[in-house]
Amino acid sequence: MTKLSYPPKRVLMGPGPSDVHPRVLQAMARPTVGHLDPYFVDLMDDIKRLLKLSFMTENDLTFPVSAPGSAGMETCFANLIEKGDKVVVMQNGVFGGRMKENVTRMGGECILHETPWGEAINPDDLEKVLNDNKDTKIVAFVHAETSTGALSDVKTLTQIAHKHNCLVIVDAVTSLGGSELKVDEWQIDAIYSGSQKCLSCTPGISPVSFNNRAIDKIKSRKTPCQSWFLDLNLVMGYWGENSKRSYHHTAPVNALYGLHESLIMLEEEGLKNSWQRHLDMHHELIQGLESIGLKAIVKESDRIPQLNAVAFDSNIDEAKVRKTLLNTYDLEIGAGLGPLTGKIWRIGLMGTSATLSNVNHCIHSLKKVLP
Amino acid sequence: MTKLSYPPKRVLMGPGPSDVHPRVLQAMARPTVGHLDPYFVDLMDDIKRLLKLSFMTENDLTFPVSAPGSAGMETCFANLIEKGDKVVVMQNGVFGGRMKENVTRMGGECILHETPWGEAINPDDLEKVLNDNKDTKIVAFVHAETSTGALSDVKTLTQIAHKHNCLVIVDAVTSLGGSELKVDEWQIDAIYSGSQKCLSCTPGISPVSFNNRAIDKIKSRKTPCQSWFLDLNLVMGYWGENSKRSYHHTAPVNALYGLHESLIMLEEEGLKNSWQRHLDMHHELIQGLESIGLKAIVKESDRIPQLNAVAFDSNIDEAKVRKTLLNTYDLEIGAGLGPLTGKIWRIGLMGTSATLSNVNHCIHSLKKVLP
Repeated sequence: MTKLSYPPKRVLMGPGPSDVHPRVLQAMARPTVGHLDPYFVDLMDDIKRLLKLSFMTENDLTFPVSAPGSAGMETCFANLIEKGDKVVVMQNGVFGGRMKENVTRMGGECILHETPWGEAINPDDLEKVLNDNKDTKIVAFVHAETSTGALSDVKTLTQIAHKHNCLVIVDAVTSLGGSELKVDEWQIDAIYSGSQKCLSCTPGISPVSFNNRAIDKIKSRKTPCQSWFLDLNLVMGYWGENSKRSYHHTAPVNALYGLHESLIMLEEEGLKNSWQRHLDMHHELIQGLESIGLKAIVKESDRIPQLNAVAFDSNIDEAKVRKTLLNTYDLEIGAGLGPLTGKIWRIGLMGTSATLSNVNHCIHSLKKVLP
Repeated sequence: MTKLSYPPKRVLMGPGPSDVHPRVLQAMARPTVGHLDPYFVDLMDDIKRLLKLSFMTENDLTFPVSAPGSAGMETCFANLIEKGDKVVVMQNGVFGGRMKENVTRMGGECILHETPWGEAINPDDLEKVLNDNKDTKIVAFVHAETSTGALSDVKTLTQIAHKHNCLVIVDAVTSLGGSELKVDEWQIDAIYSGSQKCLSCTPGISPVSFNNRAIDKIKSRKTPCQSWFLDLNLVMGYWGENSKRSYHHTAPVNALYGLHESLIMLEEEGLKNSWQRHLDMHHELIQGLESIGLKAIVKESDRIPQLNAVAFDSNIDEAKVRKTLLNTYDLEIGAGLGPLTGKIWRIGLMGTSATLSNVNHCIHSLKKVLP
C-alpha cells in the first residue's frame, strides 16, 4: 500500500462532488456481477423506479447514462437535435455555454441569449427570443447554474417554450434531489443530472429522463444520432421498458450499486424532506457567511440553496484561502469559473454535505483563515 | 437493507466483466475527494504512469476515458476522423461492426473488409484493400475479437497501414494486460481498452493512448470534434502532460481509485508474467474442455488465451446450460453474439478470473450440467 492508497478524508463543500455517505461507499465495494445477470436486471429496474421518484416522473425512459453529467447533456443534445435544427440556448453561466457547444457540434443552429452571470433567466427574454425565431425546435437552459448560484423558473420557461411548439432540454445537474423539480407536472421533455451533487453518490453517472414527445422526435429522426455510445434508439434495448436488456455496452456495475444505495437513502428521507433540508442548511450558511462579512452574489429570490456563490473583499488572496482551508481544515470549497474566476467562492451544500456540522465547520474555518 | 443490497458472489468467466479482486473493490470504497484535489492530481499522475507501463508506451496522451470501452472507441474515431476521410475497417466480429458504425456517424467513408467470424485478420487482405483504396487515411481493427475469440497480428497489420501512410486505431479492450501488446514497439497510433477485462477492475472506464502522429492529426483538425465530452483538445487540459488540470468534466473519482489499485496489482505481478498466466490458464482450460467434448472454434495459432469460444453439440439447449451454471454453480459464461448466437459459448479467463481454481470449477460444473 502506497500513500496513494489513503485518500484524505475531506469535507466536500465545493460545487461537487459532495460528501459520499459510508453506505454508498460500501455499496461500491459489493461483488461485481455480469451486466446481464438476472440480479443486475432487477437492480436496474429498481434504479429506474427510484430515479422516477426523484425526478417526479412516470417517464419510461428514465435511466442512468454510464458516464458523467457532461455525457448526460450530450445524450440529450445528440439525440434530439438534427442537422439544421434551430435551438435557443438561454445562457446564464458556464453550463449554458457548454450547451451552445453541444448544439453547434450536433450541426444545429444555436440562437444564444445571454443573461448576466448571477441572475436567473428572465421568462420575458425567452418569450421575445422565440417571437423573433419562429422556427425554433428546441429550447435549452440550466435549472440551477452551478457556476453562479442562480436558480431559474423551469416551470414558466417550459410553458413558454411549449406555447411556441418547442421541446425543452433542462440541465438539472445540481438541482435533482436538492431543489423542487417536477418533471411531469412541469412537462419537461428531456432532462439530465449528475450522480455527484445532491444525490451524494460518487461522480461518473448521469441520470436522464425523456417524455413521449421527446421519444417521438428521437424515433422519427431522419439521420442516425451522431454518437453510437449515446444513441437512445440503441440504449433503449438495454434500459428501455419491457426491453430484452440486450447488450449495448457494459454498464458500470459497481458505480450503479452506489447510485442505487444513494437513491434508496433519498427515498428513505423523502424527496420533499430533502429539498427542505437543503433550504434550511442554506439559510444557516448564509446567516453564518454574512456574520463574517461574506455576501451572496445572487439576489435572495433566485438563490440555489445547495450552491452558494459568495463575494469577498478584493484584497483577499482567494486561492491561498482555499489552499489553507483544504490543507489545514480538510475543507474543500469551490473557486469561481469564467468571468467570476478570482471573484467568488462557490460553497456547496449538496446531499450528505448539507448538515449543520458542515455549515459550522465551514463558517468557523473561514473565520479563522480570513485576514 | 433489501435483498438488492446483497449481490450474489459469482465466478465471472464470461466475456467481461471479470472477477474483481477484493483489493480493487475495497479501493472503490475509499473516501471521495474533489476531482481537482492535489491528492487526486497525484493519483492521476500515477494512473498515467501505470497505464503507460501496461500499454508499453511512452505516449504522454495516455489516460482513462471516464466511460466504458464503447466511449473509448468513440474517443478514437471522433477525434481522428474528419468528414469525408476514408477509413478501412477490417472486421472479423461484432466489434469491427461497431467500428464501422462509428466511422459513418463521424461522417467518414467506411471501406469494410469482412473476414469470416472466428478467423484472424489476414494481413494480405489489408494490403490488397489499401492497394485498391489509395486515399485511405485510417485503418482500424480489433486486436482480440471478444465476440469470436480470434487474435490478430497487430504488429504486421500496423506495418502495412503505415507503409500506405495510414494511421491505425486498435481495439485492445480484451487484450490489454492479457496478451502481448507493445504500443510503442509496434507503433500503434491510437488504442483503446476497457477496465473490466484483463485489468480486472470494475466496468466503466476506458484506458486510451495516442502517439504524436495521432495528436498532430487531432491538433490540425479543420472542424471541431463532433463530441464535446470526448474532444481530446479539451480533455488534454485535464489529463495532458504538464497541463493545468483545468476543469473539463467531473472525473469518476472512486472508479479511478479502483483502476489505480488494479494497475498496481498488474505492476506487482509484472506485465509479462500476467501474459504468461493467461496463456497457462488457457492451455489448462482448453485441455479440460476437450476432455468433456467441447472444441475451440478458432484455430490454435489464432486463439485469444483470455477469451475461449467453444462449440457444443447441436442438441444442447445452450441457454438452459448457462442458466443452470449461473443458478446452481454461481458461474457466468458468455453466449454467442450475432451469427454465433446459439452456436458457441465464450469462456473468459481475464485478469483475476484466470486461476486454476476457476478453470477447475468451470470444467467440473460443465461436466455435471452437460447432458
